[in-house]
Amino acid sequence: MASSSSNIDLTGPTFCIVTGSSQGIGKVIAIEFSKLFGPNSVLLLLARKTEELAQTAKLCESDNVKVIYKSIDLSVATEQEMCDIINQALSGHKVTDFTANIIFHNVGSLGNMSIKTSCIENVNEMRSYYDLNVFKVISLNTQFLKLFEEVEDRIIIVNITSLCAVKPMSGMAYYCSGKAAREMYFRVLAEEKKDMIVLNYSPGPVETTMIDVVIDKTVNENLRDVFTTFKKQGTLLKAETTVRKCIKVLVAGKFKSGDHVDFFDDE
Amino acid sequence: MASSSSNIDLTGPTFCIVTGSSQGIGKVIAIEFSKLFGPNSVLLLLARKTEELAQTAKLCESDNVKVIYKSIDLSVATEQEMCDIINQALSGHKVTDFTANIIFHNVGSLGNMSIKTSCIENVNEMRSYYDLNVFKVISLNTQFLKLFEEVEDRIIIVNITSLCAVKPMSGMAYYCSGKAAREMYFRVLAEEKKDMIVLNYSPGPVETTMIDVVIDKTVNENLRDVFTTFKKQGTLLKAETTVRKCIKVLVAGKFKSGDHVDFFDDE
Repeated sequence: MASSSSNIDLTGPTFCIVTGSSQGIGKVIAIEFSKLFGPNSVLLLLARKTEELAQTAKLCESDNVKVIYKSIDLSVATEQEMCDIINQALSGHKVTDFTANIIFHNVGSLGNMSIKTSCIENVNEMRSYYDLNVFKVISLNTQFLKLFEEVEDRIIIVNITSLCAVKPMSGMAYYCSGKAAREMYFRVLAEEKKDMIVLNYSPGPVETTMIDVVIDKTVNENLRDVFTTFKKQGTLLKAETTVRKCIKVLVAGKFKSGDHVDFFDDE
Repeated sequence: MASSSSNIDLTGPTFCIVTGSSQGIGKVIAIEFSKLFGPNSVLLLLARKTEELAQTAKLCESDNVKVIYKSIDLSVATEQEMCDIINQALSGHKVTDFTANIIFHNVGSLGNMSIKTSCIENVNEMRSYYDLNVFKVISLNTQFLKLFEEVEDRIIIVNITSLCAVKPMSGMAYYCSGKAAREMYFRVLAEEKKDMIVLNYSPGPVETTMIDVVIDKTVNENLRDVFTTFKKQGTLLKAETTVRKCIKVLVAGKFKSGDHVDFFDDE
């Protein structure tokens, strides 16, 4: 892999947003990354569930890091609401106060697992899925870029993607196609904005409730078998393991902006 | 490339649908493929513009092929309307009358070319784009699959894709991400339905009005330069050339169902 323009230093004052940070990988991203941030850093946590968000916030708070959390349903939030929330988190700071501005687009859902791909026809359901997983991700990203326009070369964008963005998996048409669309948007952005750093990080099969949802809901026997075997054999990754790999990838900067980097890729 | 399960024979009675067949590649797909079809074939042409559709129809009509055309805006058509149109085209036939049932998902649009990727935030615009280019394509495909369920092993699906589905291009976030999502849906479908044949065919840069729209509308200088150079140097392909390659690929069957095959791929 080619190197990104520079290694990434998160040890200065850092502004960070993590979506979907009430649980799972998002929660662990917030916890692990906040440990790296230098003094006068600000961490903004977004998700729907207030109580769980508050718990994540507690685990991230430190002398260096001020944590702000906000309950929001990103699938229906307006651009103005998104903008206001980031502005509130920034209040008392200038954008130039931070040496790195990083956003983790972690929010995501599996889509309808109870339908065969050959039977998908509900356009409203597709729209809702793409609202949360693609369109609102793009909108939020744009609000972030607008606010930090002045310091564009300090922007780092991490899209939490999946092997499913590049490899089709039976029974997961919503998830695969949504991840493919989302990742491609970030790849095009990386092509246009050469001074930003964009990473599409695929965390591998992680031990989260998502796995149980797949096993429970899928109409696809093959998919159920794969995930059940993963679970039984203990091959699922701990969220901490994959997040630490993500940190390693980012800090080493051994990727080309826009690349898809998988947990299992060679270092 | 691995071979598909069998070579494709279109010389028997064939039922065929081509979307976006009033102009450009769609029109030429209809013309060139209709020449192959055997007696008692039915060709259904769909697009918005009635007059142009009628012209395409005239060029496809033959002793072997009955042509039906229907003006329809696929971005707003309901599933019932799609189903009714196919049923009308089938009227007087049983689905078992045909030895091949082929659909070309050719309809497509470029998306908003006047906006930088970093400024995209209009969710309604994204929804409209995906309605035509992804969601309604999926819906129409599902109606087709339902009607021909009985003869699933005679189904051939050709998705007209683009290099942009796999390679990001500055200034084309809508087009690239939409093509990526659409192609991934068809790849997942191919994984699930092993008895169907699914081809994602990327026609290369073809001399159509789309190229002029890009040159005219894009805010991306690099993109304008690339396409202007293509045009000046005469490197754009004739629609006939790429459609004949598509026929060759299909008839030889030298691809794995679900594959992305580009005009420029080695044979």
